[in-house]
Amino acid sequence: MRDADNAGDPIGDLVALLGRLPGIGERSAGRLAHFVLSTDPAYADALGSALSSLHERVHRCIECGNFGASELCRICTDPRRDPTQLCVVARVPDLLALERSSLYRGRYHVLHALLAPLDGMAADKVDVDGLAARVARLGIREVVLATPLSVEGEATALYVASALRKMMIDGEPLKLSRIASGIPHGGELEYADQVTLGRALDGRKGL
Amino acid sequence: MRDADNAGDPIGDLVALLGRLPGIGERSAGRLAHFVLSTDPAYADALGSALSSLHERVHRCIECGNFGASELCRICTDPRRDPTQLCVVARVPDLLALERSSLYRGRYHVLHALLAPLDGMAADKVDVDGLAARVARLGIREVVLATPLSVEGEATALYVASALRKMMIDGEPLKLSRIASGIPHGGELEYADQVTLGRALDGRKGL
Repeated sequence: MRDADNAGDPIGDLVALLGRLPGIGERSAGRLAHFVLSTDPAYADALGSALSSLHERVHRCIECGNFGASELCRICTDPRRDPTQLCVVARVPDLLALERSSLYRGRYHVLHALLAPLDGMAADKVDVDGLAARVARLGIREVVLATPLSVEGEATALYVASALRKMMIDGEPLKLSRIASGIPHGGELEYADQVTLGRALDGRKGL
Repeated sequence: MRDADNAGDPIGDLVALLGRLPGIGERSAGRLAHFVLSTDPAYADALGSALSSLHERVHRCIECGNFGASELCRICTDPRRDPTQLCVVARVPDLLALERSSLYRGRYHVLHALLAPLDGMAADKVDVDGLAARVARLGIREVVLATPLSVEGEATALYVASALRKMMIDGEPLKLSRIASGIPHGGELEYADQVTLGRALDGRKGL
């Protein structure tokens, strides 16, 4: 008993750590731990190293904030991207979602933060000065604000827009746009909430 | 571009490894990877080490096969357990489920394998000789077969029972039992499958 206690509880430790992942409860964490135990030790080792070295191996692109394995990300170093458009997103997964759609050909700017008006999150976490400097340096013509359509995302879009509003690029005013809000593709009006319905009506287009 | 390619794709590598966990698809794996990136590096490090060192730190109890941090597990070294009963389970999570119920006070024997009649899994992976030797050495009076109620679990229970059937302990025949099958607690007859209904009828008890 003493020995067992001194050696700790490796499965329990792992279950506690796995249980901190989003969407993984204690039961799932236990199942995952026993799955790892039941498979090839080389897998546990590879997964463990990939996690331990993640923060060290992943760099934020010094230009746009996207994640990558080197100083500049693939998008910033891609000469085929439209150099006049800049899409502002809150998080890298949002950038990846836009990339999967293959519809946007400009560059990105990842804020890694959002204003949280309800939680009192300070505006100083959203680096608008850095963004404005980059817009000026790259000679951007249009900034597309693609923060989420949530309270935080909307507040951040307004805050960023107000900071960039009066910028002039090569003698012309910088164009600012916000991604559209409305009923998603395939969505039923019946199940849409009132705010979404209101936005869908406000944003109607002539036919 | 070259540099980025040479440095590999740490997030992609992690997503691929996480995606091999049961119940974690590619989308969830991506979400988990970005969650880990967005939190304290110390957490990624702790989780990574817990995984990498898991197989090394977790031992199979040399007596019963349960997992533990030392040679003998907590159950085998606990003098309060009934030394005459042995419960045969397929996997450690099954043992843990029985322990959570606090209804069984004997010791365990973990097979770490099941016969797979449909996949042609050989019987030699189920070590009945080791089990029989342990039953004789410990002077066990009753072996409770608690393998799952699946095709594999039933086949394994029959196989183990046939191997132990004629054992005599201190001049008396070894008692063999199989956990009951029937409608689970709170279960509706309406939704029970035919096999379960049949077992519930066969296993009826006098009132």
